[in-house]
Amino acid sequence: MKALVYHGPGNKALEDRPIPKIKDAADAIVRITHTTICGTDLHILKGDVPTCEPGRILGHEGVGVVHEAGSAVTAFKAGDRVLVSCISSCGKCEYCRRGMYSHCATGGWILGNRIDGTQAEYVRTPHADTSLYHIPEGADEEALVMLSDILPTGFECGVLNGKVEPGAVVAIVGAGPIGLAALLTAQFYAPAEIIMIDPDENRLKVAMRFGATKTVQAAGDKASEAVMKLTHGRGVDTAIEAVGVPASFITCEDIVAPGGTIANIGVHGHKVDLHLEKLWDRNIAITTRLVDTVTTPMLLKTVQAKKIDPKLLITHRFKLDQILEAYDAFSKAAQTHALKVVIAA
Amino acid sequence: MKALVYHGPGNKALEDRPIPKIKDAADAIVRITHTTICGTDLHILKGDVPTCEPGRILGHEGVGVVHEAGSAVTAFKAGDRVLVSCISSCGKCEYCRRGMYSHCATGGWILGNRIDGTQAEYVRTPHADTSLYHIPEGADEEALVMLSDILPTGFECGVLNGKVEPGAVVAIVGAGPIGLAALLTAQFYAPAEIIMIDPDENRLKVAMRFGATKTVQAAGDKASEAVMKLTHGRGVDTAIEAVGVPASFITCEDIVAPGGTIANIGVHGHKVDLHLEKLWDRNIAITTRLVDTVTTPMLLKTVQAKKIDPKLLITHRFKLDQILEAYDAFSKAAQTHALKVVIAA
Amino acid sequence: MKALVYHGPGNKALEDRPIPKIKDAADAIVRITHTTICGTDLHILKGDVPTCEPGRILGHEGVGVVHEAGSAVTAFKAGDRVLVSCISSCGKCEYCRRGMYSHCATGGWILGNRIDGTQAEYVRTPHADTSLYHIPEGADEEALVMLSDILPTGFECGVLNGKVEPGAVVAIVGAGPIGLAALLTAQFYAPAEIIMIDPDENRLKVAMRFGATKTVQAAGDKASEAVMKLTHGRGVDTAIEAVGVPASFITCEDIVAPGGTIANIGVHGHKVDLHLEKLWDRNIAITTRLVDTVTTPMLLKTVQAKKIDPKLLITHRFKLDQILEAYDAFSKAAQTHALKVVIAA
Amino acid sequence: MKALVYHGPGNKALEDRPIPKIKDAADAIVRITHTTICGTDLHILKGDVPTCEPGRILGHEGVGVVHEAGSAVTAFKAGDRVLVSCISSCGKCEYCRRGMYSHCATGGWILGNRIDGTQAEYVRTPHADTSLYHIPEGADEEALVMLSDILPTGFECGVLNGKVEPGAVVAIVGAGPIGLAALLTAQFYAPAEIIMIDPDENRLKVAMRFGATKTVQAAGDKASEAVMKLTHGRGVDTAIEAVGVPASFITCEDIVAPGGTIANIGVHGHKVDLHLEKLWDRNIAITTRLVDTVTTPMLLKTVQAKKIDPKLLITHRFKLDQILEAYDAFSKAAQTHALKVVIAA
Repeated sequence: MKALVYHGPGNKALEDRPIPKIKDAADAIVRITHTTICGTDLHILKGDVPTCEPGRILGHEGVGVVHEAGSAVTAFKAGDRVLVSCISSCGKCEYCRRGMYSHCATGGWILGNRIDGTQAEYVRTPHADTSLYHIPEGADEEALVMLSDILPTGFECGVLNGKVEPGAVVAIVGAGPIGLAALLTAQFYAPAEIIMIDPDENRLKVAMRFGATKTVQAAGDKASEAVMKLTHGRGVDTAIEAVGVPASFITCEDIVAPGGTIANIGVHGHKVDLHLEKLWDRNIAITTRLVDTVTTPMLLKTVQAKKIDPKLLITHRFKLDQILEAYDAFSKAAQTHALKVVIAA
Repeated sequence: MKALVYHGPGNKALEDRPIPKIKDAADAIVRITHTTICGTDLHILKGDVPTCEPGRILGHEGVGVVHEAGSAVTAFKAGDRVLVSCISSCGKCEYCRRGMYSHCATGGWILGNRIDGTQAEYVRTPHADTSLYHIPEGADEEALVMLSDILPTGFECGVLNGKVEPGAVVAIVGAGPIGLAALLTAQFYAPAEIIMIDPDENRLKVAMRFGATKTVQAAGDKASEAVMKLTHGRGVDTAIEAVGVPASFITCEDIVAPGGTIANIGVHGHKVDLHLEKLWDRNIAITTRLVDTVTTPMLLKTVQAKKIDPKLLITHRFKLDQILEAYDAFSKAAQTHALKVVIAA
Repeated sequence: MKALVYHGPGNKALEDRPIPKIKDAADAIVRITHTTICGTDLHILKGDVPTCEPGRILGHEGVGVVHEAGSAVTAFKAGDRVLVSCISSCGKCEYCRRGMYSHCATGGWILGNRIDGTQAEYVRTPHADTSLYHIPEGADEEALVMLSDILPTGFECGVLNGKVEPGAVVAIVGAGPIGLAALLTAQFYAPAEIIMIDPDENRLKVAMRFGATKTVQAAGDKASEAVMKLTHGRGVDTAIEAVGVPASFITCEDIVAPGGTIANIGVHGHKVDLHLEKLWDRNIAITTRLVDTVTTPMLLKTVQAKKIDPKLLITHRFKLDQILEAYDAFSKAAQTHALKVVIAA
Repeated sequence: MKALVYHGPGNKALEDRPIPKIKDAADAIVRITHTTICGTDLHILKGDVPTCEPGRILGHEGVGVVHEAGSAVTAFKAGDRVLVSCISSCGKCEYCRRGMYSHCATGGWILGNRIDGTQAEYVRTPHADTSLYHIPEGADEEALVMLSDILPTGFECGVLNGKVEPGAVVAIVGAGPIGLAALLTAQFYAPAEIIMIDPDENRLKVAMRFGATKTVQAAGDKASEAVMKLTHGRGVDTAIEAVGVPASFITCEDIVAPGGTIANIGVHGHKVDLHLEKLWDRNIAITTRLVDTVTTPMLLKTVQAKKIDPKLLITHRFKLDQILEAYDAFSKAAQTHALKVVIAA
């Protein structure tokens, strides 16, 4: 089969690989029909993710059809159309039982990281019963690719952790794909304001089309000042960090109102300054989270009910044998205006 | 009347002052029968609290008897025995209506800070209806002095924010009065373990007597290592910071388990390093809070029901004209083993 | 001034009455510019509300202008445009401090019940600081009349108590004004389905226009069967009772799914059969509530942000001297298709 | 092997049966070392549980040693000491993923009901990975038998659903084993008062020994009146129904304070009168629940930490070949003062 293989920092190739086989009775082999590329894949290609070793097939998102199910799999059978979660969950360990699938003792984010992933014709998915989801009759497969990772990430790490509620004022720092996913899912809770902050003009235009009520084209102190002005000095109830660099976290510290929440989504490579000398008495909460995908069933229902249109995030479409072009378009988002690129088998 | 007056960094004096008068219809004048000294009073005396100007009568804790009630006061009348909350709350503003009395638009922590306080024979208490509490029949006044500030602070900022629950593993960094108040109130929720961390041997002995299950006599990396060992590498569900310096916050970052909470109580004068490069995917929460005293009615009930004995915290007793000695004993806690010192009229 | 006065079961009259005066320092006198009629007013006129004695001016909803503020009122002054809450709240008692204004020791639902109400040119509002709300600049007064009672009632008793959440299936039994208020505010939480149940065809048409996803024109067993069919035998996550008779509560018992909630809004005059022999192991919750109006600030923000259009509920408009016609139109809703009737000064 | 077999209403026998075999790859066969009898077993013997057919081995509680593990079982192996949960949970279905194991699509309460149970030398446990729990080193097996059903039932259905909290006033109607289990676990949350209500003097004596603060030896109206007197007319924050008959539910309706909760534990065979004409405006919640055993890990920790002593509930001990005597003692509790009887292999 064709597969996109990581060969160490800066190197990747589309190669022929054998179709994966069941290794564990709880595995399934899924024939991928649609996959996509995540910002994290670019991190891997920069060499930032040491758990991902050269030789690994990349990708942790996708939908497809069950090709073969292991003997212990009871919820799926060959031929079932499925959504592949970016998080593998055994359903049995302490963390899975608490709904923290991200910290599953034998799962978590392993696809396209510790084991071969979804940017291929086939993928082996461990813990299939509790890591795959049936695709509802009539659902749009392309749309559902957005439910493997980006929508639950924006929703769980940003919106739920950020306690977005009706009438609230929300700011999202970073209008890339993940910030936009938070923007789309924040609207489930009818906040009064969603202020998007990004230096990129095009992304802010997209954000307005996706439901932002205000935008701030700036970063750093200028962004903070603009938000404080827009909120008449009050600050925001929820500040969502969707970049992953110290400066945008500091913006969140600067703009969060007393009693508010900073919900971090970004993948951080460096420590940040936490200004407790200003925040110790502000009654705030700061949350971090690797997506658990515990809300996938809920999100499937909202997509089916047309409460959200995940396809808004899809800007480019490729075939699997064009995946190098897809990477190119996705990694040059500033020029291509790419958000999510869908790769069909 | 006698009053302890702040005269700028390093200076204080017991002086004669006029008995305060009602300024606003919602005020009450309370004759103080028992007050105490808070670590924050020492901060003021170091010059760390710019809102507190020279000439101010210190003190934000106490119980007493209503001497006079303003014309708009309906819940209290002269002669009523009352607990004075360290937080003044108007009960009307947005923050008070949300239960965040600490951020009351015209109140918050003002006693012994922005206005004259309780280390005197009399004090003027603004917003009396919503900042005083009736002392239940038969209650011990000395015990209730601990409900002005220290117990609600340990409970709200440490225990409630830290989401302590049955069977949980809790660590408290700092076994001073405020850490011990968190220790006492954490036991409302039957955690499996409460690990107290402090370099001071005597304080840890006190902690064991107060219900700690384990102690770590160390600070910094050594403390973190010891806690990780005690928890078999798992870390703690709740880490309570009860010191207010960067090193103890870092300990909390080091020992919090995935899914856990760091509840900050300490008053910080400096920023701390937040290691998001390690914590971004750990699904943790960090909380800060100035006590709201919103749990004072609940705490009064637990004291009345003998679920907690606040007098455990009282180590020394003085009369108001010995208050300079009381400050001396309290500020030299390492030698005197002082926790809370009660000052009677 | 003109006022609509209750004269015992079946009797009411528009009469001349003296303008009310401040009785307590916390009172305000409000000149009413817009008021409305509530289903509860009809209950009073049937003699069902013994606390409301003959001679009482009816009405507990309205907006207006502060005419005079008592000496203890600090948040409002003459000339301020205000929303009058149907619930008077002292802000000081145990229940007010817990956010249960409905059970305020000296307030609760007293307007147009235990004291004179708002269907008049002027009204005396006790506890003005904590029972009136400033009308935001540019807000539509007619729209805000819906925030005195009907919208917080639908929202708090139906939607919040019913724990409506994204992707959920909600059924509302009763498509009268209060059921429609629940329908409008349920959409803050993006449920997948909102099934409206009512025997009246016109009301269901209105419901579809207001955002219902499905309707059931039936009552009793037929309604339950239809809902179970629509939900493929699963039942609903939230069943909201918005009528106040045993049959509609039974419908809720029949259709609630395991783990679901029955949120009662209706005012009941009779006991109902609770089928614990079927429900004891279904893990359900049943809630009751008199509106607390604790969400009024939140609702004001959602109206200002155009997340909801309260004017959808207004079908008829009258002047105060036509109030008997207004009562006539409102009480014959089946013919007039009246939802809420607004009465302007 | 020896097994206690149900032979239709009123009939049971200790018989020889073949040792069960693995039927499904997720099964385990457990050699039972200790089991017990539940009130529900007596219900079955009265013919009240139609899902339990003649020929069934009874019992849904017990601890033991894994004799054989099916090929899909990964968390347990032969020789492991285990606690058997009364609820079988697949860990995969919608309800299991939501923590509602009681409604597991292929599990729930099936042991000793729809399939053979634990009152035998061996039992087949379906979904072993997610329905058994490892027994911690050094734990007392007899004590842990109380964690199969009675303690999680009292805790989840009574204490958690009842939202018991520090300083609260709790009433428990029924001081039988399940009411006492609620009493023991309610103390995790430091309520101010726990009032036990039962007509049986001996049970109330036991209750006082177990931590009740007050008792009411009465039923019906007399019980309600006594509780209202004890609470100075205020009523209770949490009323726990632990009997399962209409009269005790009515007592709960009579004594619940505004804002309070009625948490039903009892198994009801008849409908009850719900006095909505009195309760519609009281802001109460009523909950029902079949135990999910989702708190078993938490309870294991509290037992290990000695926060609770489950052995308090054990009054009688028998060997398996004396199980008919054990049933006799348990079913004549009024004379024998039996609470829980432990049956050793």
